[in-house]
Amino acid sequence: MTSGLRFDHAVLPNGLTVIGEHNPRAVTTAVGYMVRAGARDETPDVSGVSHFLEHMCFKGNERYSADDINRVFDELGADYNAYTSEERTVYYGAVTADKGGRLLELLTELLEPSLRQDDFEMEKKVILEEIAMYQDRPAQRLFESANQRYWNGHPLGNSVLGSVESITALTRDAMQVYFDRRYAPSNVLLVLAGNYDWDAMLAQAERRTASWRDYQVVRERPAARPARGYEELVDPKLTRQHVALYAPGVPVESPQRFVPVVLANAIGDSSGSRLYWELVDKGLSDNAWLAHESGEGEGAFVGYLSVAPAKAEEVLERYQQVLARAQDEGLTPEEWRRAQRKIATGLTFRAETPLGRLMSFGTAYQTLGVYESVADVVAAVLSTPLEAGLELLRRRPFDDAYVLALGPG
Amino acid sequence: MTSGLRFDHAVLPNGLTVIGEHNPRAVTTAVGYMVRAGARDETPDVSGVSHFLEHMCFKGNERYSADDINRVFDELGADYNAYTSEERTVYYGAVTADKGGRLLELLTELLEPSLRQDDFEMEKKVILEEIAMYQDRPAQRLFESANQRYWNGHPLGNSVLGSVESITALTRDAMQVYFDRRYAPSNVLLVLAGNYDWDAMLAQAERRTASWRDYQVVRERPAARPARGYEELVDPKLTRQHVALYAPGVPVESPQRFVPVVLANAIGDSSGSRLYWELVDKGLSDNAWLAHESGEGEGAFVGYLSVAPAKAEEVLERYQQVLARAQDEGLTPEEWRRAQRKIATGLTFRAETPLGRLMSFGTAYQTLGVYESVADVVAAVLSTPLEAGLELLRRRPFDDAYVLALGPG
Repeated sequence: MTSGLRFDHAVLPNGLTVIGEHNPRAVTTAVGYMVRAGARDETPDVSGVSHFLEHMCFKGNERYSADDINRVFDELGADYNAYTSEERTVYYGAVTADKGGRLLELLTELLEPSLRQDDFEMEKKVILEEIAMYQDRPAQRLFESANQRYWNGHPLGNSVLGSVESITALTRDAMQVYFDRRYAPSNVLLVLAGNYDWDAMLAQAERRTASWRDYQVVRERPAARPARGYEELVDPKLTRQHVALYAPGVPVESPQRFVPVVLANAIGDSSGSRLYWELVDKGLSDNAWLAHESGEGEGAFVGYLSVAPAKAEEVLERYQQVLARAQDEGLTPEEWRRAQRKIATGLTFRAETPLGRLMSFGTAYQTLGVYESVADVVAAVLSTPLEAGLELLRRRPFDDAYVLALGPG
Repeated sequence: MTSGLRFDHAVLPNGLTVIGEHNPRAVTTAVGYMVRAGARDETPDVSGVSHFLEHMCFKGNERYSADDINRVFDELGADYNAYTSEERTVYYGAVTADKGGRLLELLTELLEPSLRQDDFEMEKKVILEEIAMYQDRPAQRLFESANQRYWNGHPLGNSVLGSVESITALTRDAMQVYFDRRYAPSNVLLVLAGNYDWDAMLAQAERRTASWRDYQVVRERPAARPARGYEELVDPKLTRQHVALYAPGVPVESPQRFVPVVLANAIGDSSGSRLYWELVDKGLSDNAWLAHESGEGEGAFVGYLSVAPAKAEEVLERYQQVLARAQDEGLTPEEWRRAQRKIATGLTFRAETPLGRLMSFGTAYQTLGVYESVADVVAAVLSTPLEAGLELLRRRPFDDAYVLALGPG
């Protein structure tokens, strides 16, 4: 699958890093701008600004109206979108290989938004609608609260969407200030994947972003003091009990970063894991899983359980017993091997398309500063030793779990 | 993208049809069994049996336990799953090309389930949990009701999941009867996509399914008498108003089948459509769309609107005005062209992986009996004339709409 792949890399005079994974077999080209600006970079008074700004970048500038942007993406036959997370904001698309240059052109326009006042007011309503929509989605409400409470003041607990209050109070000028302090070329990564002409794309990127001036961007990385214990939120309107569990994990920069990923998969993958066989396969819960999420400087195990309220106490106890037993007794080599294979499979299939590749090696490069081929990552996962997992379990991370339940009470 | 593709086709002595789209550039192989048995084939007393049976097929037989099946899929590094719809039940997976034969072997085991009594009782709990989970998902509850009410006794209104009552009452023997009447080889399609050895796979399929005996399966296709008008369901626990809209559409066998698809996209695609600009872009609704779904013998436009209860009446009126205006004034050539391109783009990107291709040409072949390459389908979409869309609008399908609202009242 990796035959004939080539890694391309350059830093433009304005500080913008451009990377690419060229695949001569690909029939499409994916292009993405990854901005190292996300919810964790927000102060409370502008909570939600990264995500709101992502929306505003589709509103255009003096050259492109919002309708133009939408129309040109469609004319290019582009599969395109954007997302905002705690760590970053990503604008991306994929087209047939002959249109890569035009896609780069359009995505570059997105990163030069006018942030017009009237667009801002209109889009504010859209964001508020999006926030309102989550009120009917208990699992998302739960994780919004649990994430904030677990991180306990650390910026990784910041809400991506923001609140009704913060969005209502946000001004266009405050967004402009945020943009001017975060979208520096050296804080942005331009990523190409699939079939493209490196020299032509690089020359175009350099010419097109020549006016972008660079400046220094600092990301705060305070120490985390995560919460622990059990809390419960009651909403009589709900019919199910939803439970989130957080426990201390491993930061993304750790040389051990795949250890908690394999561990969480063995314990709590959505199929064929210990939690699956113990809770879901037995019909005790419709959904019970454990995963591991890592950010810059911090990581956490994140788990979820959905259950009938009458059985909630018993099933949550079983869930926690599964974690405790793993700490007490470890995992078998077979379980470890199986989890490794499942993760490798997911990586391999995600790598089938240029857009899938762009997301994988782009985010890894932005965080770690190194290029990782699919083969590299698969090899790293498959060679992660069980002993490292057992060592992590011996530190008993789940004894420090924070659990938040949301149900009808 | 279609260079070097080859269509393979054979009918085995037992009546099983095997088709494939061979792609020498692919590094993976996708294999799927498509059974023409879905919710529409169920009588009310066994409502939900198709989907429950899909789960039971993963429970194994005298050769493979449930754990074996799960384990072997993982050992193969397979990306695999199954789904049940009104029209069919599909078991599928994808692996690197060297493992295609072993994947076929395992999927064939799935179609020879023992349906053990104890597995059946255990899995019944899993299904009931799945049904319970939907109680906290208002949009899914709404569509479950709206679909049933719109189809008004026609089997396309049958619930895929079934109800708590029907699943509780279902017996293992009734499921066996359903299996014995629906899983005839001539009612099943074996589909291959990507890189595979046709002769070897075909020989394996023939040898492995030699004991399957064929019989005739009849699918009922009664005339539909769809409902129209407006109904409202009240649930004081909700915070948003959710609205579903149905209107008469076009069956999948129609030579005009792409006309309503392009039409619905132009009016109500989730981005860049009339509904998008009129409702979502203006912050009046977090979600407003219109699509077209077609089954054997019948089709329908299906729409959705989510809105704050206080604005529900006004925004639903606007939604319906968008539909009425399209009927009154038609669409522009630009809108039509743009919708065509967006659909072609979606088809093209879905075709990037063997598994995506398997789903597309497999379901089309099962329904229409003809092979369609991506290029064929893209060409058919791009050559669908605006005049056909205008003709459909002149028949004023939305005047016969059925609208169901679910909200706090």
